[in-house]
Amino acid sequence: MEFSAIFHDVNKRYCYALDKNTFLIRVQTKKDDMRKVILHYQDKHIPRDYMDTHQAVMMEKAASDQYLDYYEAAIKMDAMCIRYYFELEDCKGEKIYYSNYEFVKEPFTDVERMYDCPELLREQEQFIVPRWAKNKVIYQIFPSRYATDKNVPSREWYKEPISFKDDLQGNLRGIIDHLDHLEELGVDVIYMTPIFQSPSCHKYDTVDYYHIDPSFGTEEDLRELVDKAHKMGMRVILDAVFNHTSPEFFAFKDVAEKEWDSKYIDWYYISEFPLRRSRGEKPNYKCFGYYGGMPKLNLENPQTSRYFIDVALYWLKEFHIDGWRLDVADEISHRFWKNFRREVKAVNPEALIIGEIWHYAGDFLEGDEWDSVMNYPFYNAVKDYVVYGTLNTSQFMGNLDFIRGRSHIDAHQVLVNLIGSHDTPRFLHLCGSKEKQKLAAAMLLLMPGMPMIYYGDEYGMQGGQDPDNRRGMYWDQEHQDQDMFSWYKKLIQVRKAHPVITEGKTIVRITDDESGLIVLVKELAGERITLIFHNGTEEVRLQEWLKKAVATEDMVQECAIMLANELKDTKNLLTDTLFDGAINGYEVLVLTEI
Amino acid sequence: MEFSAIFHDVNKRYCYALDKNTFLIRVQTKKDDMRKVILHYQDKHIPRDYMDTHQAVMMEKAASDQYLDYYEAAIKMDAMCIRYYFELEDCKGEKIYYSNYEFVKEPFTDVERMYDCPELLREQEQFIVPRWAKNKVIYQIFPSRYATDKNVPSREWYKEPISFKDDLQGNLRGIIDHLDHLEELGVDVIYMTPIFQSPSCHKYDTVDYYHIDPSFGTEEDLRELVDKAHKMGMRVILDAVFNHTSPEFFAFKDVAEKEWDSKYIDWYYISEFPLRRSRGEKPNYKCFGYYGGMPKLNLENPQTSRYFIDVALYWLKEFHIDGWRLDVADEISHRFWKNFRREVKAVNPEALIIGEIWHYAGDFLEGDEWDSVMNYPFYNAVKDYVVYGTLNTSQFMGNLDFIRGRSHIDAHQVLVNLIGSHDTPRFLHLCGSKEKQKLAAAMLLLMPGMPMIYYGDEYGMQGGQDPDNRRGMYWDQEHQDQDMFSWYKKLIQVRKAHPVITEGKTIVRITDDESGLIVLVKELAGERITLIFHNGTEEVRLQEWLKKAVATEDMVQECAIMLANELKDTKNLLTDTLFDGAINGYEVLVLTEI
Repeated sequence: MEFSAIFHDVNKRYCYALDKNTFLIRVQTKKDDMRKVILHYQDKHIPRDYMDTHQAVMMEKAASDQYLDYYEAAIKMDAMCIRYYFELEDCKGEKIYYSNYEFVKEPFTDVERMYDCPELLREQEQFIVPRWAKNKVIYQIFPSRYATDKNVPSREWYKEPISFKDDLQGNLRGIIDHLDHLEELGVDVIYMTPIFQSPSCHKYDTVDYYHIDPSFGTEEDLRELVDKAHKMGMRVILDAVFNHTSPEFFAFKDVAEKEWDSKYIDWYYISEFPLRRSRGEKPNYKCFGYYGGMPKLNLENPQTSRYFIDVALYWLKEFHIDGWRLDVADEISHRFWKNFRREVKAVNPEALIIGEIWHYAGDFLEGDEWDSVMNYPFYNAVKDYVVYGTLNTSQFMGNLDFIRGRSHIDAHQVLVNLIGSHDTPRFLHLCGSKEKQKLAAAMLLLMPGMPMIYYGDEYGMQGGQDPDNRRGMYWDQEHQDQDMFSWYKKLIQVRKAHPVITEGKTIVRITDDESGLIVLVKELAGERITLIFHNGTEEVRLQEWLKKAVATEDMVQECAIMLANELKDTKNLLTDTLFDGAINGYEVLVLTEI
Repeated sequence: MEFSAIFHDVNKRYCYALDKNTFLIRVQTKKDDMRKVILHYQDKHIPRDYMDTHQAVMMEKAASDQYLDYYEAAIKMDAMCIRYYFELEDCKGEKIYYSNYEFVKEPFTDVERMYDCPELLREQEQFIVPRWAKNKVIYQIFPSRYATDKNVPSREWYKEPISFKDDLQGNLRGIIDHLDHLEELGVDVIYMTPIFQSPSCHKYDTVDYYHIDPSFGTEEDLRELVDKAHKMGMRVILDAVFNHTSPEFFAFKDVAEKEWDSKYIDWYYISEFPLRRSRGEKPNYKCFGYYGGMPKLNLENPQTSRYFIDVALYWLKEFHIDGWRLDVADEISHRFWKNFRREVKAVNPEALIIGEIWHYAGDFLEGDEWDSVMNYPFYNAVKDYVVYGTLNTSQFMGNLDFIRGRSHIDAHQVLVNLIGSHDTPRFLHLCGSKEKQKLAAAMLLLMPGMPMIYYGDEYGMQGGQDPDNRRGMYWDQEHQDQDMFSWYKKLIQVRKAHPVITEGKTIVRITDDESGLIVLVKELAGERITLIFHNGTEEVRLQEWLKKAVATEDMVQECAIMLANELKDTKNLLTDTLFDGAINGYEVLVLTEI
């Protein structure tokens, strides 16, 4: 037994309330080390001689990353405090009891040595994500390049490569005019990068947080966009850039002019005057990026914090937007985000809060700050697996399970999965293969979480590194890849028609590093579905492959043979055709019984 | 290399600011797995083609528990953000690079794959503990049994066993009259269990938080006690019982009387009326312990939270107390403690905040809640090692290092170490041996942290489980063990005269499970000291023992031989005698060069 890998701590990462009286308890162990893990628990305050409240429950392996397994159990007990410990039995038959970083050979009897979790504390800290958002499909729009009602010549709109200076004149009216496209695709949530007044086309350097940039339209346009989207059953999320402002923002202009006498001096981090602002020299005030960058806001200043939380509340209250995506969110303090969440949720408990962070989100995702993140670890996993081949099949699935194993079970269903954004090259550009993009899109759209489609990917748009990834949207049929569009649309249809895909319990998981096959069997309320992804070039006869000695993680050989037989009489929901027993290179199957 | 044990996350547990521009970065690996660990880091925002900011530093093994090693490095860099990754080389020569839960064979070049730590965020979250408190000696007083100026007959004062009902009439005047005892012993901080108005002798069921219990004296007595202690260079800490109140507290009385009409109804958690309050039945309101217990406060109610934070501020402001020990603190929400800290530190940044928790304190000790805890894991380690023998020598040192490895480096110096309290049997009662208590006292008083002496232990007081551990203090010579007193006094003198003992860097650590010997060589500013603890019965010739093939953790055999030679010309500070080369059963040596 590998003691060094075993860990549980009484905190929100390993022990949290799912609802009143229901706790989820998680313990991690070395991958494939344990035969069984049992949770023992009892009421802290009822003496054993009065009533024996001890219970034991088998924990389930909920996730398995490259190196660790995550065992979980959801338990119910109406108690002030729960005391608990773990019984671990490894594959060699060694049995040990674990509590409070102690490993002992006999069950714990000294209650002081057991883990000790106050129910009320966990209830108060409960992580409540907006129910509406679970597993919904997001569509990311970069407004200046998405659509316009202005008269923009084709050669201008479709120019490539795009530069930072190109202004294609996209606007909100253009988006409104194309809501039917999003509806047809099956989008649930529209997320727009910043739309407030700013001199750049990306608008991450905001000059006025209370006004729509005139080139994008008016407040009335936003109101119409939100209202129409809502009527069509879609939600709208805006981009909050609170880490920094444009140097033209009123407060920084005041600082630049009045220097130490400015009443906004504490809104920023200024070391000295005169300000060094020219490109190529290190500025003497904190800013986003060193060279001529945008000044960083001091959100620890209560005045500044108030101003920006008010901005967030204003657009929620007055325009009924459905949430905020937070730019450079991991460089802003936990204290600010805790206040932000409290105030945002007071105005609209259903508002969705998505932080931008490029890594595992840790402390930001514990229920009192954000609801979700731009899930770049998902992006990295798909990219490394499908594009570069630096992850093999089991490592890829391990990396997805790393996210699952370390996430709150509800937050996991709202993580914003992506295979590209305005900050990455287009996936098609990276992989250079339509088949690979289709495979990656299937991974994106057939997994739990909130898959985010970057505008135009559904038409096979091209584009390299930022800013070239922000070309004018392919609105003319001659540019559009209709086959790709049908694929995205079909994936979303199947995803929505079969909640088992996103909400089902995975009962079989097989990965094969040699062939690049992933087989997932999922079940929900009597419905059973088999997902098969093939990140490989050769056709594989599935029954034969299953009957061979495949490397199985969650099942034994017998089970693989049973599955092979079951698959005979199935159809592929993605093509509405009978399953013929073979899977081609880069193909994806969603199989269900006829 | 054991990948499953390796962990680092960009959060306050593994990456924090020691001061502006200095970060401490920690990574954990399987015990004894690594030959070397190197931290690579660079400025996030300076492009490499502009300036190469990459640096590399060898990390030090700062702690080593039973299963894991903790490597640390403190690095300086004036940057907005630091990007970093680890280079790990194991004892078999395998080399791997680790960042963001990825293990790769080549150094990271893609900056997006590196860990990413915003400097400002960590600065703002900096954990600042009161400097005055570091490594200071605490003395715990249970006022009703400590001392009195009333005329209490000896047979009453020294009765045993003590019961919950016995009121020995101890009071603040008694404590004031005995401050010279504490001064002589060498105490720095006096911590008194609750002194506010309450019907019980322990006073954990408070009726009035704004008044000293009349049996203990008056507000003027407290003022005099604090002033006199301050003049003698001692600090005073009180006990804050904010988890629950007495049922006689005004708010609960109002609730009991007016039921749903009470304006204090939301101060508690009431399910129904009439209240079920008799012993033996499960109450229909939340309380501390089920049976006729004290009602639990709802500190999520802003009114209630305000009231109790005001209580804390009142005694700080009006009576100049130096901090609070927080009762049942781990059953109160993180949100309350964050507010509590902010307000307490605004009134007195030097106020010390000590939470009561019986386990590893995790989230409570990250800089925004408490400064310290009652360190019961230390108590458990000493008890298991010295009393029960269920830990062997290396396991014991491993458990101490578990605390060090998972603590903030500054917080570690204010952890309230103990070998007994008003909630445990006396250590002497448990071990039944004066030698063992002396050994445990030396472990307590010769380690970093804030050692807490439970009143009377310095005179070898007796007493079993609560309440018998709360007997009247031994004020008469016939009861006092003067030898024990001299031992405690000497230990404190040596501790204070040689800061190397608490603040020094451990350069040699040897543990021997067979003989029960622990050898620690520490260095600070040119001073070198050797601490030897012997948890065994047999005399050991140290030089011979060192020269044999001892199990060494931080040193090689050569080093042990060198040490053996060095020890020849030393003296033992605890006895002021030349070291004769031998250590007796349960003996402790503090050796320094002659």
